Amino acid sequence: MFKRLCVIGTGLIGGSIARAARQQGLCRQIVALGLPEHLPELQTAQDLQVIDHYYTQPAQALAGCDCVIIATPVGAVSSVFKTLAEYAADNPGWLDQVIISDACSTKGSVLAAAEKIFTKLPARLVLAHPIAGAERSGVTASFAELFQGRRLIITPLPESDPAAVAQISQFWQAIGSSVSFMSVEQHDTVLAATSHLPHILAFALTGMLGRRDEQEEIFKYAAGGFKDFTRIASSDPTMWQNICIANAQEILPLLQQYCAELGNIADMLQAGQAQQLHDTFSYAKNARQRFLDKQ
Amino acid sequence: MFKRLCVIGTGLIGGSIARAARQQGLCRQIVALGLPEHLPELQTAQDLQVIDHYYTQPAQALAGCDCVIIATPVGAVSSVFKTLAEYAADNPGWLDQVIISDACSTKGSVLAAAEKIFTKLPARLVLAHPIAGAERSGVTASFAELFQGRRLIITPLPESDPAAVAQISQFWQAIGSSVSFMSVEQHDTVLAATSHLPHILAFALTGMLGRRDEQEEIFKYAAGGFKDFTRIASSDPTMWQNICIANAQEILPLLQQYCAELGNIADMLQAGQAQQLHDTFSYAKNARQRFLDKQ
Repeated sequence: MFKRLCVIGTGLIGGSIARAARQQGLCRQIVALGLPEHLPELQTAQDLQVIDHYYTQPAQALAGCDCVIIATPVGAVSSVFKTLAEYAADNPGWLDQVIISDACSTKGSVLAAAEKIFTKLPARLVLAHPIAGAERSGVTASFAELFQGRRLIITPLPESDPAAVAQISQFWQAIGSSVSFMSVEQHDTVLAATSHLPHILAFALTGMLGRRDEQEEIFKYAAGGFKDFTRIASSDPTMWQNICIANAQEILPLLQQYCAELGNIADMLQAGQAQQLHDTFSYAKNARQRFLDKQ
Repeated sequence: MFKRLCVIGTGLIGGSIARAARQQGLCRQIVALGLPEHLPELQTAQDLQVIDHYYTQPAQALAGCDCVIIATPVGAVSSVFKTLAEYAADNPGWLDQVIISDACSTKGSVLAAAEKIFTKLPARLVLAHPIAGAERSGVTASFAELFQGRRLIITPLPESDPAAVAQISQFWQAIGSSVSFMSVEQHDTVLAATSHLPHILAFALTGMLGRRDEQEEIFKYAAGGFKDFTRIASSDPTMWQNICIANAQEILPLLQQYCAELGNIADMLQAGQAQQLHDTFSYAKNARQRFLDKQ
């Protein structure tokens, strides 16, 4: 499918994309571009044969590439685009030959960065987001099956070349993903609700109880449900700080709404409104069943 | 250990206690007392041989019992105590022969009910709480191994007969629990933080997103973590309404504190304070690791 794929960011996601692409025979060559400060991770990726070669010089990594996938924390995307724009300026016509795609968890901020850096939005820029992850991070945690049976959302732009969109769609399908399309705005709204907000809630609870546990042992007596409920608080803080900053405008109103929900429940508790509480919990239980039915 | 155990409430917990006691040969006979409206559940419990017999007449169920375990929703405990107090009034000396225990998730409200109903708190009343549960409820979901390796908290009262406390402790150890002791107040504080609050948070989020999902499909795109995070929102609404009302005074300040935590995070998002967000998430991740290390 691709002659030479360049992965930028060889952590869990970038590493898993490379492994999956190799396993499915989708790329003749897979290289990585990284900053000198990421040499250990890049070297590990090469040692594990996740990639064929790594480079810290953009010209070496990008030459001959027909696909670049950005899998860095979303906060680093701007500087990656700068690097790509500079290489494109030095190599006229390159942007017509290469598909630039990404795997970032927010799309609005990636689009904004692209609009700011490229004088004209590349037609073969295809933004994508695999709804997949794992508790562990880094290339050593990566595996080829990470995207099997998981959703992959593509957010095509009005400027997007349909052929490039189709090719990225085929790439993800080939590594096992189920591809959906939506607008950048819809993506960020839906993900803020179903992923970013829950992560913040889990971090906030675990932090609050952690401070208390330092004074008085409480974690010892936490029931089984607590373990599941807080699992996502073990996620990578750097990645989540990046996502939250990038999608703050979608997340903030949800946080506000959520506090209002908790305020309503507090009022029911205060007033001893058993029936209202029951109805609230029942509605939630049924909603979760609907969620399960959609999986 | 017991000649005749009477279980009041034959749902997941009561049914599992009966099954475990039988499996370990701890009781010569196991009976259940229930209201006429619970006949189908009682009949199922008898048909499944979880119990030997059920009765709706207290005199028939309680005669000859040396142990009664209350496993009803916590809101029903008051009326159970009334029944027991009436039987005790008709049968002087009974309270010296029987251990009365429970499996309710809150202890302060159970103690308050006992203090209100019994003219003098029975010395052989031993309050206990198994930190165990499952997503499904009812006697058909009960199983003998539910308490294996799980914590059981006993909250002895100043009036408690040490021999009765020791016997309940041995009973739970014999069915696989790891027994801890704490005060009624400490129990309710710790459980409000590690169990009651997380359940409310999960119900609130699932409900809020459920209403939104009715307008616009969002559950379809929820990432893997969402499933774990909201699992406890599938818990029994009646049980949780009861717990929340019973322990409202402990839960309310925690809800308030939690909203303040979310407010701090919202401020960081609004101000784009990446480092503070990172520190907040990092602290939480480390706290969760400490929690895991204690399990």
